Amino acid sequence: MPTQFDPPSGTRDFLAGDWEFRESAFARIRSVFARYGFEPLVTPSFEYGDEGDKLIFKILRRGEHEETGEADLALRYDHTVPLARVAAAYGSQLPTPYKRYAIGPVWRADRPGRGRYREFTQCDLDTLGSTSVMADAEVVSAAHDVLAELGLTGFRFLVNSRRVLAGLLEGFGVPADLGSGVLITLDKLDKLAPEEVGAELRERGLSEQTAESLVGALTAGSVEQVRDALKTSEEGAAGIEEVDELLSLLAGQVPADRLVFTPRLVRGLSYYTGPIWEIVADGIPGSLAGGGRYDHLIEQLGGPNVPATGGALGVERILMSLPDPGSAHSRLDVAVTVMGEQYAGRSFSLAAAARAAGLRASVYLGTSGKLGRQLKWASDTGARWALIYGGAEDEAGTVTVRDMTSGDQAAVPVSELTGYLAGLADAAGLPGPA
Amino acid sequence: MPTQFDPPSGTRDFLAGDWEFRESAFARIRSVFARYGFEPLVTPSFEYGDEGDKLIFKILRRGEHEETGEADLALRYDHTVPLARVAAAYGSQLPTPYKRYAIGPVWRADRPGRGRYREFTQCDLDTLGSTSVMADAEVVSAAHDVLAELGLTGFRFLVNSRRVLAGLLEGFGVPADLGSGVLITLDKLDKLAPEEVGAELRERGLSEQTAESLVGALTAGSVEQVRDALKTSEEGAAGIEEVDELLSLLAGQVPADRLVFTPRLVRGLSYYTGPIWEIVADGIPGSLAGGGRYDHLIEQLGGPNVPATGGALGVERILMSLPDPGSAHSRLDVAVTVMGEQYAGRSFSLAAAARAAGLRASVYLGTSGKLGRQLKWASDTGARWALIYGGAEDEAGTVTVRDMTSGDQAAVPVSELTGYLAGLADAAGLPGPA
Repeated sequence: MPTQFDPPSGTRDFLAGDWEFRESAFARIRSVFARYGFEPLVTPSFEYGDEGDKLIFKILRRGEHEETGEADLALRYDHTVPLARVAAAYGSQLPTPYKRYAIGPVWRADRPGRGRYREFTQCDLDTLGSTSVMADAEVVSAAHDVLAELGLTGFRFLVNSRRVLAGLLEGFGVPADLGSGVLITLDKLDKLAPEEVGAELRERGLSEQTAESLVGALTAGSVEQVRDALKTSEEGAAGIEEVDELLSLLAGQVPADRLVFTPRLVRGLSYYTGPIWEIVADGIPGSLAGGGRYDHLIEQLGGPNVPATGGALGVERILMSLPDPGSAHSRLDVAVTVMGEQYAGRSFSLAAAARAAGLRASVYLGTSGKLGRQLKWASDTGARWALIYGGAEDEAGTVTVRDMTSGDQAAVPVSELTGYLAGLADAAGLPGPA
Repeated sequence: MPTQFDPPSGTRDFLAGDWEFRESAFARIRSVFARYGFEPLVTPSFEYGDEGDKLIFKILRRGEHEETGEADLALRYDHTVPLARVAAAYGSQLPTPYKRYAIGPVWRADRPGRGRYREFTQCDLDTLGSTSVMADAEVVSAAHDVLAELGLTGFRFLVNSRRVLAGLLEGFGVPADLGSGVLITLDKLDKLAPEEVGAELRERGLSEQTAESLVGALTAGSVEQVRDALKTSEEGAAGIEEVDELLSLLAGQVPADRLVFTPRLVRGLSYYTGPIWEIVADGIPGSLAGGGRYDHLIEQLGGPNVPATGGALGVERILMSLPDPGSAHSRLDVAVTVMGEQYAGRSFSLAAAARAAGLRASVYLGTSGKLGRQLKWASDTGARWALIYGGAEDEAGTVTVRDMTSGDQAAVPVSELTGYLAGLADAAGLPGPA
């Protein structure tokens, strides 16, 4: 049951463990993208414009306009509209082609549900300014490397081309004016039974025979059958060639069993103009990523007239399919006890000496003077070592280093503490000084 | 002059160079905070609530409420309100004390200006649940280490305590009901001439003598004089003790000339209850960071009744004072030419071989088949090396590796390319395979 202290509906608080889990995945993704020569782009959280989709969060105008309920800004809905704006704004300052990635939150006023948020991270990868199918292949290959690097298995790419679809419609004699509706229906072949799709096609005005042969070729039939049918159409032949070129470029990079030419793949969005693809995985409904070539969209969004290809990774879904991050909180390496006010300054310096060894260290900030109580705190922080400095240590000029796992203790001269801890850290495989 | 393609007023697009510059600074900051045992907290971009400050960006309610112009969410204004909510929501699941940092955007509907944005990054560091002055000292010490780690020099901490201020008012016989007004005026001593401050104090109702001796002690007078005056007040004596304890804890961590007891330091916000501090730097107006103890604020904001101390780093201002990031775009390590369609697949694999050596590599995605044109592209990307694979190389089974600086070329067997490039990268000091 939500309380007044929960984050707003459809949003999340990320405590340390969750955040570090996400950040480490994002860092891996960034690193793959960078190796492909894609560079980051980060745009504002809001853009001008209040018209359009009912899922857009609009921001109330400030000042004298507030009373009117007018909105002039909207929270970022995706990374494509800002990309078109940036391409228009920075034009010649951008490299040609412009290969950029964007990883950041977008906001949608959707009904929240399992895995569906109002604030979530979207991860886009796009190349503007190249008509080469190598640009398409780079995006697909990078998406593949990301999933492989994150440790996902059992996933595969469904590959198709909008031109194959156009050729299909032509090859099966679908009247031109029914084309887009037919594609919308064919897109349901992964969810509905073939008969249901056939019935919907007939409702859309296809003859029984056309509907049946189309559905049959895409489900019961073999891909070779579809290839043959496509040869009768110029657009279809060009589409097949495009798909084959893409698959051939990817042959060395993506294992062959992860690449599936899928003539029935439509992808909902009508702006695609060339190759399209989707990543699906066993046991995960829907897709993990998808994309394609969209040569006119940037101009339609107000940007320059540039060819473009790209894809989006469903990072929230991908993160959900990775092993649980484990601990909710960061752990300390070194917990420093404070055995009385007169040693507070010394304890404070001991923590600094541990930090100089590259370790995470904190002094005890509570009010108890009892060692047992402070060691309990040390244990709660997950610390590997506790430092103790009291009267005996003060006299000897040493500090007691306690191994929190074994309980073993060592007396170490204060001046040698940093080196001693660095040695322990090294032996434990912890990172050294930055 | 702004165009329709500029980002919304008061916001910024971060192209690759700027973003990498910022991220690398944030990574250093995170690393310092982590070494002090602070853990990250990331909360949603908006919170419930539409009342309050006129600088808050409000979000229009969606659906049937849209017509009303009602707002139920507001963009995050600071990191303190969410901290109070998180402390209330997760209470016992949080470590005690809860030491967290937050680095992320906040939004303010302020008039944009040089260095003043509507969307900017705020960086907070706070400890909830400790009354110890060691907690205050940790925050100050961590803030110091951040600035030192970022390479800033010429900065110093102004340190004071709210209790010193209370003692000052008492010691100089300021009537209790004039206290808070007098502090607001004294806060102007760093901007106005002493006479102007004196005049304002008289306007507030102080006698000429009190106003003069107060201003005199805080400007012309020595800190020793102020210390003496404070001894006459219980609160003042406690304040001095608190400041001295803080300074003594910091003595080993922060160079002595960077710590300045500054009795006139007020800090605007009235919620402070103990030590307060600010970082100022030569040649930079205003402060780079500031903070203090605020033992009642979390409860006032709807959170639990916990003592708290913390600080905020003015990261936008700090970033502005660092050396310019240089290039606006990421550079490639390896640019792979494509000498004809028949070698496209090979070129694509060569780029993959370079990536396997941990390098940033891309194939040529343009339409020119001319080597000169493609090498111009390679040079534009900043690549250190270009790879060439054409007819001659195909026959020999080698790839030509061209050093883009010297123009030297080497013929390398295709199967040895990854190892060869890894060697070059190593010699050039580039990071190896991840």
